[in-house]
Amino acid sequence: MERIHATYWLETGDDPARTAEIIAGEQSSGTFVTLPTETPELKARAGARIERLEILDHSGTSSLPTPQPSARYTRAILELSWPLANLGPCLPTLMATIAGNLFELRAVTGLRLLDLQLPPAFAHAYPGPAFGIAGTRRLSGVKTGPLIGTIIKPSVGLSVQETAEQVRLLVEGGVDFIKDDELQANGPACPFEERVRAVMSVVNDAADRSGRKVMVAFNLTGNLDQMRHRHDLVLAQGGTCVMACLNSVGLVGMHALRTHAQLPIHAHRAGWGYLSRSPQLGFDFAPWQKIWRLAGADHLHVNGLRNKFSESDESVMAAARSVLAPVMGSTPLPAMPVFSSGQTGLQAHDTYAGLGCADLIHTAGGGIFGHPGGVAAGVQALRDAWQAAMAGESLHEAANNSPALKQAMGFWQ
Amino acid sequence: MERIHATYWLETGDDPARTAEIIAGEQSSGTFVTLPTETPELKARAGARIERLEILDHSGTSSLPTPQPSARYTRAILELSWPLANLGPCLPTLMATIAGNLFELRAVTGLRLLDLQLPPAFAHAYPGPAFGIAGTRRLSGVKTGPLIGTIIKPSVGLSVQETAEQVRLLVEGGVDFIKDDELQANGPACPFEERVRAVMSVVNDAADRSGRKVMVAFNLTGNLDQMRHRHDLVLAQGGTCVMACLNSVGLVGMHALRTHAQLPIHAHRAGWGYLSRSPQLGFDFAPWQKIWRLAGADHLHVNGLRNKFSESDESVMAAARSVLAPVMGSTPLPAMPVFSSGQTGLQAHDTYAGLGCADLIHTAGGGIFGHPGGVAAGVQALRDAWQAAMAGESLHEAANNSPALKQAMGFWQ
Repeated sequence: MERIHATYWLETGDDPARTAEIIAGEQSSGTFVTLPTETPELKARAGARIERLEILDHSGTSSLPTPQPSARYTRAILELSWPLANLGPCLPTLMATIAGNLFELRAVTGLRLLDLQLPPAFAHAYPGPAFGIAGTRRLSGVKTGPLIGTIIKPSVGLSVQETAEQVRLLVEGGVDFIKDDELQANGPACPFEERVRAVMSVVNDAADRSGRKVMVAFNLTGNLDQMRHRHDLVLAQGGTCVMACLNSVGLVGMHALRTHAQLPIHAHRAGWGYLSRSPQLGFDFAPWQKIWRLAGADHLHVNGLRNKFSESDESVMAAARSVLAPVMGSTPLPAMPVFSSGQTGLQAHDTYAGLGCADLIHTAGGGIFGHPGGVAAGVQALRDAWQAAMAGESLHEAANNSPALKQAMGFWQ
Repeated sequence: MERIHATYWLETGDDPARTAEIIAGEQSSGTFVTLPTETPELKARAGARIERLEILDHSGTSSLPTPQPSARYTRAILELSWPLANLGPCLPTLMATIAGNLFELRAVTGLRLLDLQLPPAFAHAYPGPAFGIAGTRRLSGVKTGPLIGTIIKPSVGLSVQETAEQVRLLVEGGVDFIKDDELQANGPACPFEERVRAVMSVVNDAADRSGRKVMVAFNLTGNLDQMRHRHDLVLAQGGTCVMACLNSVGLVGMHALRTHAQLPIHAHRAGWGYLSRSPQLGFDFAPWQKIWRLAGADHLHVNGLRNKFSESDESVMAAARSVLAPVMGSTPLPAMPVFSSGQTGLQAHDTYAGLGCADLIHTAGGGIFGHPGGVAAGVQALRDAWQAAMAGESLHEAANNSPALKQAMGFWQ
């Protein structure tokens, strides 16, 4: 019978085997008291199963507060499995099952989801990304290497016309990809519809001249009817991408958007910090992003190397690799990782080395706008840095043949 | 101009005023570098404003790990405000604004949302609960006092017929309210449609005899089309409530369900632990539940006093009071708190005293099923405990006039 497998980092002040039983019970057929109706047959059929419990180490203090203190806390890797028959291939109920009430248990003083393995039924029930890497390359006209991109800044506060002017600068500068900030959706100060019309007029004019259309991810985050309406507007205006904030929209909204959409969905993870910043609580990115890829995300944000946030480089690269790894063996559903935050050409080599490919979007703000030669030189410098990385050439070697890169080396830091 | 206000508990190893500026900038018109396009006029118009920064205390260690360590960490209360014009009355974009990238900032070593005050535009843009307390009382026929309820257990593993049999026991025992477990939605082992038909047949038969229909919250959590279809089935079968898992469904899904629904929405908070279990990260319940009430939640889970989880009684009562408090002065949008987890009549007095009213659902499992006199005696005992609480009578006094309560006192503990 098909089963769902989830692996956790667990900390408990109780006997770890007993705590594992409590978690397995709470998340399947058990409860706090023994029920006569939970027969051995029922438990065998519907109970979650402890597949692995591997003790790691111990601590004298608990990571998370508990009303049930102990002299010693044990850390362990816990793998549970559930029969698919409990819930069927339903992502929302999967969330309640693998990430429901278990974090609140008294015996649990730390719990973090590390891995998730789903049976093929989920790939039959959910669409996955409609465009992914190949579709994004086709629509953007970027056949190899990363999409060189940027985020419209200031995030909020620009008028529609000021936004369109900034897009014009970027388009003329040769950028491949532009996105709205997650804070900019449909505020009265810069309404979505007017923004799309003004921006797409710039983008379409340039495409008519150059034959290549810059991909703009318009942040359509809103209620469902609004998102559908906004998607249709972007499509009608010739746009090639929409953006949604996953934690704002939620799984059902994301799936409903995917069902409706005819454009790639650029998935922003704003709020990821509250799901991950405590190392002893919440989610690793790898299992979490699988759920959103099944629901239909084409691009997934993964922060960037040497970023301005608190995330380590190891965590960033693990996240990016997970986006490129198959969701399941039979159904890869590849999506494109999006690197951002304090990015310049200085991160190209390490990013390429860490991923082994350049199927990604690399967004830079200051790294492009700060170039003394202007936006076009900034874009060229970033592109040349990637070209060098992919060719196995050092930045300094490449700078000898690229004046834009040479100049950029002075201010990238 | 209308503004949105959010208040946080903040910890930082940096100067707290500087960290407050970083947060305000990141969540509005600023970014990591100074931009010439972020003019003073733009910042005055679109920037988040620091309304209050009140230093609380200091610590030698950081609550959350940071690559920017310090010898001393300052804890403070930080209140920010945003112009409504940045985002308009949009709940999903509100989430990205008040709970977006800020948790990941390097200078932030602890951040928790404590309070949220929204301008009236949100109450105009969102429906709020369609039934709330009054509608729930009308549909359930419970004019005063709490709805006495229970959760079908084992959570998963019962067949459709076994589920219906358990409902028959409960209905005959005089319960007011029954709910599916959050793990039980539409698994192949107990499909939603068959379960609803079998359960409602029991419920309707009993209602034909007694004139009062037990409210059953069927967990319709699923994709949007499924939820709509399931809602329509419950409605057609004469059901009076549906249940959805908020963190599984998400804001857009919840709002879309509310827009479609003609029944009260029982909102389960499974996963609340990953949003709240670290005291230095995530959300207090009070601001969080406002967002879900605006989107349409009629009933909201708040755990229970002396519960089996890790949450303190103070936190439980603060959560329950917040559900009964107005979302905003002009628009109360009252919802009904749902108490559960290790509940018996022993919690009735303290729960009533803490709330000052009995507009709630009190669910008990073992507290009802464990009664030596059977389910009817268990329900009667819980009801009599509440009657005593509301009449200002002690449990022991009341037990003199209630054999069911007297017997229950022996096993409630």
